[in-house]
Amino acid sequence: MESDEAAAKRARAEGGEVAPTEVVANGISAVIPGWFSEISPMWPGEAHSLKVEKILFQGKSDYQDVMVFQSSTYGKVLVLDGVIQLTERDECAYQEMITHLPLCSIPNPKKVLVIGGGDGGVLREVSRHSSVEQVDICEIDKMVVDVSKQFFPDVAVGYEDSRVTLHIGDGVAFLKNAPEGTYDAVIVDSSDPIGPAQELFEKPFFESVARALRPGGVVCTQAESIWLHMHIIEDIVSNCRQIFKGSVNYAWTTVPTYPSGVIGFMLCSTEGPAVDFQHPVFNIDEDEVSNKSKGPLKFYNSEIHSAAFCLPSFAKRVIESKAAN
Amino acid sequence: MESDEAAAKRARAEGGEVAPTEVVANGISAVIPGWFSEISPMWPGEAHSLKVEKILFQGKSDYQDVMVFQSSTYGKVLVLDGVIQLTERDECAYQEMITHLPLCSIPNPKKVLVIGGGDGGVLREVSRHSSVEQVDICEIDKMVVDVSKQFFPDVAVGYEDSRVTLHIGDGVAFLKNAPEGTYDAVIVDSSDPIGPAQELFEKPFFESVARALRPGGVVCTQAESIWLHMHIIEDIVSNCRQIFKGSVNYAWTTVPTYPSGVIGFMLCSTEGPAVDFQHPVFNIDEDEVSNKSKGPLKFYNSEIHSAAFCLPSFAKRVIESKAAN
Repeated sequence: MESDEAAAKRARAEGGEVAPTEVVANGISAVIPGWFSEISPMWPGEAHSLKVEKILFQGKSDYQDVMVFQSSTYGKVLVLDGVIQLTERDECAYQEMITHLPLCSIPNPKKVLVIGGGDGGVLREVSRHSSVEQVDICEIDKMVVDVSKQFFPDVAVGYEDSRVTLHIGDGVAFLKNAPEGTYDAVIVDSSDPIGPAQELFEKPFFESVARALRPGGVVCTQAESIWLHMHIIEDIVSNCRQIFKGSVNYAWTTVPTYPSGVIGFMLCSTEGPAVDFQHPVFNIDEDEVSNKSKGPLKFYNSEIHSAAFCLPSFAKRVIESKAAN
Repeated sequence: MESDEAAAKRARAEGGEVAPTEVVANGISAVIPGWFSEISPMWPGEAHSLKVEKILFQGKSDYQDVMVFQSSTYGKVLVLDGVIQLTERDECAYQEMITHLPLCSIPNPKKVLVIGGGDGGVLREVSRHSSVEQVDICEIDKMVVDVSKQFFPDVAVGYEDSRVTLHIGDGVAFLKNAPEGTYDAVIVDSSDPIGPAQELFEKPFFESVARALRPGGVVCTQAESIWLHMHIIEDIVSNCRQIFKGSVNYAWTTVPTYPSGVIGFMLCSTEGPAVDFQHPVFNIDEDEVSNKSKGPLKFYNSEIHSAAFCLPSFAKRVIESKAAN
C-alpha cells in the first residue's frame, strides 16, 4: 500500500488536491514543508499551521500518536493524533479557565478529581487552591504523562504537589468505582470526542460524574467550540440538563491554537447547596498564598470568569432552549 | 526577476522551505494545492488555511490586491493583500461588535462616520439604529465597494440605506476637512497597519478623529489581537490616552478567521458628557424597530457588550498601566 508520504508526494507532483488523509505523514504535514498543519474531519475545510523548528518526540502509545515539536513562535507543542493539545504560548488560557471556573465557584474545595489532563497543567492550577486536600487524576495514556514531564516541565510541575495521586487507567471505569458523593469538583480535561475521549462526552459518563460528586458539587468539562460544534454542544447540554439537577451552564474562552480560536466548558452542579457559576465566591487572582507560591495568574481573573458565561446570540439561543435555569 | 509563482515552484521542487514572501502567487497559496493560506509577517510562524472551492474574483486596485473565493466551509471570503477581511460564516461577530459597542454606549446617535469598511457590513449594522440621521463613509478603495456589492450582497446591503453617503477617498484627509464637533460616533474599520491602513493607527489620525467628534462623542477602531500584537496595542492605548480626554477602553471578541481567533477594539470618548462603555445605554438586541426591519442580531447582545471589556490578566496588566481611567 502506498504510504501517506508517497501519496502526498504523488498528489503534489500531479498538481492535484491532497485529501486530508494524505496530508499527515508521521504526524507532520507533508504539504507545507517544515510546517505542521492541523487537518481534521472535526473542522472540515480549514487548517491551522505552525512552523516547525524541530521535532522533539514522536511515539505511538496504546491509544494514540504522540508528538512534540519546537515551533518557531508558539514554544513547544504537544500533538495527539494530529491535533494540537497545548502550546507553551497559550496553554495558560485553557488550564486556568478549566480549573478556576469550577473551583472558584464553590467555597473551599477539598477533594478534586481530574479526568484526562495527563500533561499536568490542570493539576498545576488546582494546586493553587490551599483549601484542597486531595487531588486524584485518572489519565488513560501514560505516554502523555511521561512526555509532558520530559518536555513541558512548567506544565507537568503540577505532579510535584504531594496532594496529587496519579491513576493510569480508564476515566470511565475509575468514576464507576469511585465511592458516591466523594468529590467537591470533577474536571474533565479531554481531547475531542473522536478517539480515546469519545465516552467522556456520553450520558453514562455524566451519570457517573454526578454520582461521584457531593451534593452541590461541580463539574467542568471541555465542551468544544460554539463556532464549529453547536450540534455536539446541544447534545451535551441536553444530557447534562437531565443529569445535573443543580445548574447547567456553558462558558467559553479564547485559545488561539484551538480550532476556531475558542474552546467551551460545560459547568454543572448536583442537587444541593446552590452554585451560581457566574458569580465566583473565591478570588484566586488576589489570593496571597497562590500568588506567593506560584506567581501571578497569566489569564484568569474574576471579571473574565463572569464574562466567560456571556454567549454570542447565536449560541445563547440554542443553549438556552436546551437549558433554562 | 523570478516571479513569486516560479520561486514557490522552485522551492517545492528542491524540497526546501518556502519563505512567506514566496508562498502567495496571485493571492492563492501555492503550497497547499486547493487551499488559501494566510501567511504574514504580522503573525510569523503560523498560518490559517481555508479550502478553496472556486476563485470568484482577482484584481489589483490602486491600493491592494483584491480576491474573492468560495470556500468549502466558510462561505465566500474577501481577501485584501493576502489577508482575510471577512467570511460569510463569521463576519457577524466583527461587524456587529465594532458597530454596536460604540453606538449602544451613547444615547440616540445621529451623525456617524465610518472610515474604511468598504464592504458595507458596518453600514448594515449602523442602519439598525433608528436614531441615526446621517452616515458618512470614507473608503479609499472603490474596488472593495464594487466587489462587495457584486459578491457579498448580504454585507453590501448597508449601502441601500438612504441615510448613507459614500465618499471614495483618503480617510485621513476626509477627517482633516470634516467640520469640528460634527459626529456622535466615528467607526474605523481598517485593515492591518501594513499597507493602505497604516496611517489609521497613528497619532495625527486620532487627533483628527477627536476634533471631528462632538463633546462626549465616541470612536471605535479596529485594534488587533491581544495574543499577537500587544506592542501595537500598547502604542495605540498610549496615543489615545493623550488625545481622548473622556475615557479610553479596550474590548475584544472572537472571530475564527482572524489571526489568533480574536480581534480587539479601542473605544474612546472625547471630553464632555461621560461615556461608560462597559454599561450600554441602549439595548439594540431587544429593539423592535431593528428586529422588525433587519431580523435578529446573530452575535451582539448587551451581556456580550459588557463582557467584551473583561481582559485576560496578561493584557489587562499592560493596558491598565497605559490607561488608568
